[in-house]
Amino acid sequence: MSEPVSPIRPTDAAARALARSLVAGASFGALGVLHPGTGIPHVARIAVAPAIGGGMLAFVSGLALHSRALAAAPKAGLLIGEPGPKGDPLSHPRLSLSVIASFVSAEAAATQGLRALWLARHPKARVYVDLPDFRFVHLAPTTAFLNGGFGKAFELTAADLLP
Amino acid sequence: MSEPVSPIRPTDAAARALARSLVAGASFGALGVLHPGTGIPHVARIAVAPAIGGGMLAFVSGLALHSRALAAAPKAGLLIGEPGPKGDPLSHPRLSLSVIASFVSAEAAATQGLRALWLARHPKARVYVDLPDFRFVHLAPTTAFLNGGFGKAFELTAADLLP
Repeated sequence: MSEPVSPIRPTDAAARALARSLVAGASFGALGVLHPGTGIPHVARIAVAPAIGGGMLAFVSGLALHSRALAAAPKAGLLIGEPGPKGDPLSHPRLSLSVIASFVSAEAAATQGLRALWLARHPKARVYVDLPDFRFVHLAPTTAFLNGGFGKAFELTAADLLP
Repeated sequence: MSEPVSPIRPTDAAARALARSLVAGASFGALGVLHPGTGIPHVARIAVAPAIGGGMLAFVSGLALHSRALAAAPKAGLLIGEPGPKGDPLSHPRLSLSVIASFVSAEAAATQGLRALWLARHPKARVYVDLPDFRFVHLAPTTAFLNGGFGKAFELTAADLLP
């Protein structure tokens, strides 16, 4: 009997650079939260932007299920690394972040210039950026799983992702 | 004080048709599982195909974290509805399924012709379809959340999704 071979490779500079480029380039992601009613994972597509100083920003409606879920259980998962229009999604690199969500107060968002940062990445957000029920959420990574394509898997730390 | 308006619309024939078309057209999705070590949602990109008789099929490596997670906790989330190459991902329709995963035995997969079904949707899977550690998983929806774009949200039942 042979033991299964671990698919995880030792983290190297190329893996860190790839993961950082996925964070820096992300505009959208798949957010996995615990459904507040059932406790079962619920996955929603959300818009994101890299946060100054590390981690990701999201901008969510208080009416959305995933907002209520994050408020109740802030430990969540975020998949980033959208496949290109023609590439095979399973050979396109992607990053599964384990994150802790914290809602940003309107005062802190203003101080940090988050509205301008958000509009720079999401120009179409002009139609909803000033709606009263929307709030910024900072998603701070604790660990990350990088899949750089078949056979190229890495387990990364939060420090590996810092810009 | 005004009450928040529910963003959920009554399910109609157009919503059912849209959801069924997303199921029928899906090749990839974002699977949300409970990380077996931490219990925190973990989101992975997976290949999928619509299953005969309803629900989705996945084909997963036993080495993958999400496979071990599904074996330990089969209630999961699956987001389908990939944005087109140029469209705004948040205005593209998508479906968040709540699913129960069941691994398909090699015998049942052979009887049901799943290998041919899989290769019809994923021709590049020829390079891994016969690897010994891969197994088919049936993802049976229990409920679904359809987001047809801003302000077009629906809560659907499993029956709403049947072909």
